Amino acid sequence: MAGKKDAVRKILDAVKADKRTSLTAPEGKLVCDAYGIPVPKEGLATSAAEAGKLAARIGFPVVMKIVSPDILHKTEAGGVIVGVADAKAAQKAYATILANARKYKAKARIEGIQIQQMITGGTEVIVGAITDGSFGKLVAFGLGGVLVEVLKDVTFRLAPTTKTEARSMLEGIKAAEMLNGVRGGEKVNKAALADVIVKISQLVADFPEISELDLNPIFASKAGAIAADVRIVVDFAPAAPRFRPKEADIVKSMNRIMRPDAVAVIGASAEAGKIGNSVMKNLINGGYKGKIYPIHPKADEILGYKAYKSVKDVEGDIDVAVFAIPAPFVAGALTECGEKKISGAVLIPSGFAETGNVEGQAEIQAIGRKYNIRLMGPNIYGFYYTPKNLCATFCTAYDVKGHAALSSQSGGIGMAIIGFSRSAKMGVSAIVGLGNKSDIDEDDLLCFFEQDDNTHIIAQHCEDLKDGRAFAEVAKRVSKKKPIVVLKAGRTSAGAKAASSHTGALAGNDKIYEDVFNQSGVIRARSLRQMLEFARGVPVLPTPAGENVLIITGAGGSGVLLSDACVDNGLKLMSMPADLDAAFRKFIPPFGAAGNPVDITGGEPPITYVNTVKLGLTDERIHALILGYWHTIVTPPMVFARNMVEVKKEMEAKGFVKPMVASLAGDVEVEEAAEYLYQNGIPAYAYSTEFPVEVLGAKYKWARGAGLL
Amino acid sequence: MAGKKDAVRKILDAVKADKRTSLTAPEGKLVCDAYGIPVPKEGLATSAAEAGKLAARIGFPVVMKIVSPDILHKTEAGGVIVGVADAKAAQKAYATILANARKYKAKARIEGIQIQQMITGGTEVIVGAITDGSFGKLVAFGLGGVLVEVLKDVTFRLAPTTKTEARSMLEGIKAAEMLNGVRGGEKVNKAALADVIVKISQLVADFPEISELDLNPIFASKAGAIAADVRIVVDFAPAAPRFRPKEADIVKSMNRIMRPDAVAVIGASAEAGKIGNSVMKNLINGGYKGKIYPIHPKADEILGYKAYKSVKDVEGDIDVAVFAIPAPFVAGALTECGEKKISGAVLIPSGFAETGNVEGQAEIQAIGRKYNIRLMGPNIYGFYYTPKNLCATFCTAYDVKGHAALSSQSGGIGMAIIGFSRSAKMGVSAIVGLGNKSDIDEDDLLCFFEQDDNTHIIAQHCEDLKDGRAFAEVAKRVSKKKPIVVLKAGRTSAGAKAASSHTGALAGNDKIYEDVFNQSGVIRARSLRQMLEFARGVPVLPTPAGENVLIITGAGGSGVLLSDACVDNGLKLMSMPADLDAAFRKFIPPFGAAGNPVDITGGEPPITYVNTVKLGLTDERIHALILGYWHTIVTPPMVFARNMVEVKKEMEAKGFVKPMVASLAGDVEVEEAAEYLYQNGIPAYAYSTEFPVEVLGAKYKWARGAGLL
Repeated sequence: MAGKKDAVRKILDAVKADKRTSLTAPEGKLVCDAYGIPVPKEGLATSAAEAGKLAARIGFPVVMKIVSPDILHKTEAGGVIVGVADAKAAQKAYATILANARKYKAKARIEGIQIQQMITGGTEVIVGAITDGSFGKLVAFGLGGVLVEVLKDVTFRLAPTTKTEARSMLEGIKAAEMLNGVRGGEKVNKAALADVIVKISQLVADFPEISELDLNPIFASKAGAIAADVRIVVDFAPAAPRFRPKEADIVKSMNRIMRPDAVAVIGASAEAGKIGNSVMKNLINGGYKGKIYPIHPKADEILGYKAYKSVKDVEGDIDVAVFAIPAPFVAGALTECGEKKISGAVLIPSGFAETGNVEGQAEIQAIGRKYNIRLMGPNIYGFYYTPKNLCATFCTAYDVKGHAALSSQSGGIGMAIIGFSRSAKMGVSAIVGLGNKSDIDEDDLLCFFEQDDNTHIIAQHCEDLKDGRAFAEVAKRVSKKKPIVVLKAGRTSAGAKAASSHTGALAGNDKIYEDVFNQSGVIRARSLRQMLEFARGVPVLPTPAGENVLIITGAGGSGVLLSDACVDNGLKLMSMPADLDAAFRKFIPPFGAAGNPVDITGGEPPITYVNTVKLGLTDERIHALILGYWHTIVTPPMVFARNMVEVKKEMEAKGFVKPMVASLAGDVEVEEAAEYLYQNGIPAYAYSTEFPVEVLGAKYKWARGAGLL
Repeated sequence: MAGKKDAVRKILDAVKADKRTSLTAPEGKLVCDAYGIPVPKEGLATSAAEAGKLAARIGFPVVMKIVSPDILHKTEAGGVIVGVADAKAAQKAYATILANARKYKAKARIEGIQIQQMITGGTEVIVGAITDGSFGKLVAFGLGGVLVEVLKDVTFRLAPTTKTEARSMLEGIKAAEMLNGVRGGEKVNKAALADVIVKISQLVADFPEISELDLNPIFASKAGAIAADVRIVVDFAPAAPRFRPKEADIVKSMNRIMRPDAVAVIGASAEAGKIGNSVMKNLINGGYKGKIYPIHPKADEILGYKAYKSVKDVEGDIDVAVFAIPAPFVAGALTECGEKKISGAVLIPSGFAETGNVEGQAEIQAIGRKYNIRLMGPNIYGFYYTPKNLCATFCTAYDVKGHAALSSQSGGIGMAIIGFSRSAKMGVSAIVGLGNKSDIDEDDLLCFFEQDDNTHIIAQHCEDLKDGRAFAEVAKRVSKKKPIVVLKAGRTSAGAKAASSHTGALAGNDKIYEDVFNQSGVIRARSLRQMLEFARGVPVLPTPAGENVLIITGAGGSGVLLSDACVDNGLKLMSMPADLDAAFRKFIPPFGAAGNPVDITGGEPPITYVNTVKLGLTDERIHALILGYWHTIVTPPMVFARNMVEVKKEMEAKGFVKPMVASLAGDVEVEEAAEYLYQNGIPAYAYSTEFPVEVLGAKYKWARGAGLL
């Protein structure tokens, strides 16, 4: 193992000494050799005669390519001739390439001409690696060729990657079927291809200075995978990684911040309308039971609490300080917090990086690091942690306790979270504003919520991830225990920067987020409302025991739309066994349809819903139910709702616990029925066939990612 | 013109006489020749010697193919040799092919071997045609090759197609960029390619017996497009088209049905809970001003109205009869309606085709045709037409008048329409149940609503289109005047039937709907809720004068999500001219961001929203506004809402009329504000950045399709 690293280190040292930014083709081949990546037979010829002999030894046809540290785009320089068929042609090609190269760049240093075994046949694919500002080293896979480039059909994983992940990349492109051999094409050796991906991902992980890498094309066939061309770009002065405390320290600090025994309010005020007044009121009226220390330069008492000039004047320990003072005063007060050994600062004030005051933000970051104070914000609304009745924010108080922890990068989105939560009676454990993320970011929150028993689901809105790699690493672990939903805004921005490599050019920024989220078991929300609905609905549902979903519907029309939604959301409509079909038929009219959906037809009384749903809950081959209700006089909305909740409870008591969602079609009374169902553990929506299925789909996505299915 | 048709007719007659189902390659070439579709030079050789001579005359390399009416899959039979390089090779190939063919099928009739100019280079594409059960003749276009097959990247249009539509097909595939020349590839001659599409579409329109056709591959290059292989499948006994009255007759009947002066209720009842009782009550309580005739075998009077034993006993004219009797009695009563010259029958009863009673349905269809009665249903809830206060249904009455006409194939979806409409205070002109569509279907409704001044938008839920071609033809015309929204359920069903042709195999049923809807200017809703939201929001918005959309937001976070939604919905975020940027900057804080979105920042008073929105409405380079509101104490939700409505009205009075939508982030009070905005012409949504943009996107989609942009 050391041997291969030494070999590569030696090559990179030489490149560095030469002050070059890329490797020559022979150097690239040596790197591949060191890591066991198959490449064509080849050699370097320095004369036409030698070219002829070498080519004959390798076997015809061969490809001939200029080797020059000064010529990066070999084809453009006329430095490549393919399909050289015999020794005489090889000699001639040598002369031609040399002449072209001279013409292209007269002063180019030419080391010779590479003679390479020409590989044809098989499927052309590309494996590459790039360095992303947030995620670090990523390995990429796609099919080769122009059409794939047009369709941007590439997939990414964090490097290094496992064999299993590499195999998932082969299935992760739209044109995956091509690798199985289509229309007489040959099925490629997927193990060999995955092996190349794993090795490349290890290589770039071992050598951070390899900033970009292309194996393009790789000829993949039944026999194996051979990289016909290798391109490696290096950067010996990479950006410093973002500071990240040890996880134990993160958890310790975050616990003091989120579950404090004592809170200081810096800039507390008795004057209504001031932020420092709102924060005080929210702490008090929210019912927080810990100590509250208002900090104010002059006041002796604020809203009945003894006030202090500085946190340093407080006798007892303080866990967290909420800042409600203008930006220019933050640094001074923060230093005092440091001296007082306060664990966290909730920086409500704006006026930092978001207004161009980058220096001001750097200053407080430095203070935070010096004194080991974790900073939330600046430029935030603060946070809520309901198990402690803690409203450390200037917004309205929030008190519906529950198990969803939400965060937002933006204050506006935070307000939408609060409004929706209140309106939908969504129980939350925490709502956190992250703002400028000068320090505390999404992965810090994940670490806290992971060990917070009050939190069962984590939903995060973000516009970027300052440290995507840290996020992914933590998310991968946490998502095994609790669902993580992320709304990544800025999806469609022109995020893909121009990059010098082929792989880089193919990398849409959003595609990287998409793939890394998938790799980390994160459920991606497509919209704000979807994030909110997932946060509300996913923890309500029990985890399904299997993939078989059954639709039971009074409205045939809803059944069709619910089926569409199942396909859209990756749910598997179980195919109905004959005995089960017969069992359902006993309960429904002769012109109803069993199968899946089970169409009980519209005119049925409540008992038909009850009987079929009972059967759906008890038969062990069925793992989840989707109900389609049709408002009729025979079965009014609230009658349906109460019956369903009863059946659910009765069956649960008998040990039959399955996720169940409902779509209600009817007049306005269905809104009340949907609300009742939801509050009783059956996520239900009026006038929508897609929302309930999306929520069930999110639950399934999580369960699969967590290895529970 | 007649000449080309005669030539093809002659060939088809011969095929028919032979009782064949496909044309030979030479026949296919003759068909192409007749319609001016370029094919390679070729000829038929019946001996090895002739093969050599012919090949030399055509020019090498050539392709050689077996010609036999008994061998359809030539490659499989070893009947094709490509790249034949000289006369000697041609002679040898002749013998080889002949031997292979004999081995493959000893008794195959062999007419000779086709020698064809071998076309290489350029981009391989495919043009084809299929016959769809609902849409009839469709022409298809896609790239050639295996990868495209895997990705199912094909597009369809109704045949015959225009040159403009054919050009739109070239842009309508995902890999469209390939035709422009990628990575040194050659830009293809699009005019030549479009010409082939138009000609093929004309050919299949001229000859309905051509059921499937493939030109695969066509080599498209700068020089032109040459079809290297032609395959034509015929069916001389096509299915009879669905009956369709003349449009003038449709409109006349539909007007009598939807706006009747006299309604009979067959099966009217005084007994509460009966359907015939509900219908009577709805007619009466709904406020219908026309004549109401209850029909009942015994009663003299029902709910204060004189009752009759039969419609034939009524003295005055009757326009429409609502049926509230069991299925077995429908045929008899319908015959009496016919004798009474009633224009339409609203067939509420179920128990027809949907329960397997296909004969019963055929019987009433026949009666309808005999007496020229148009049938709505059976198996429906009836219909509402609010301008006449007409509730011809057993459901609850609906009275919020307005301009959206909705229909549904399914009763459950109809109930969801009613509930949503009432809940959202959506004004409707009509809600119609179509059920089994034994007669009246979506295009009949389109014809009526087209000329109904009370209707400004038409939204239809359907599971299939019984006559997709009629629908498309009518929709194409009507959508120029009024937006048509369609929710096509069964999107994801395995609708693509196995077909014997390549084009057929590529045709996913849903892709055809998608393309035909686009071709017809129909806005396709992706979900039930989306159809409802479009029906509600699109008519509220004025038509934009251009493509420039501007976002003005108090919440930067909403701005990013709104931008995402714009891209998702095909909206163009205008790039901000310097002078306009400066003008906006005057109104916003120095750390706010002009550009697009205009981020006025969260802490601003109402006047900042007012000033920026005023500017947005007055500057003529801006064509539509998306507002992002952030709930703060400084600008509470209802203050924002009232201000926006005032600004809108003030600017409208000055002639500045632009579509404007809003996304509201905040605590629960934003729900009231959203409602107020919506009721005053600004579609607005709480806790959602995507819904308002989707509605604006739908308006734009319609305006583009109608040629207004």
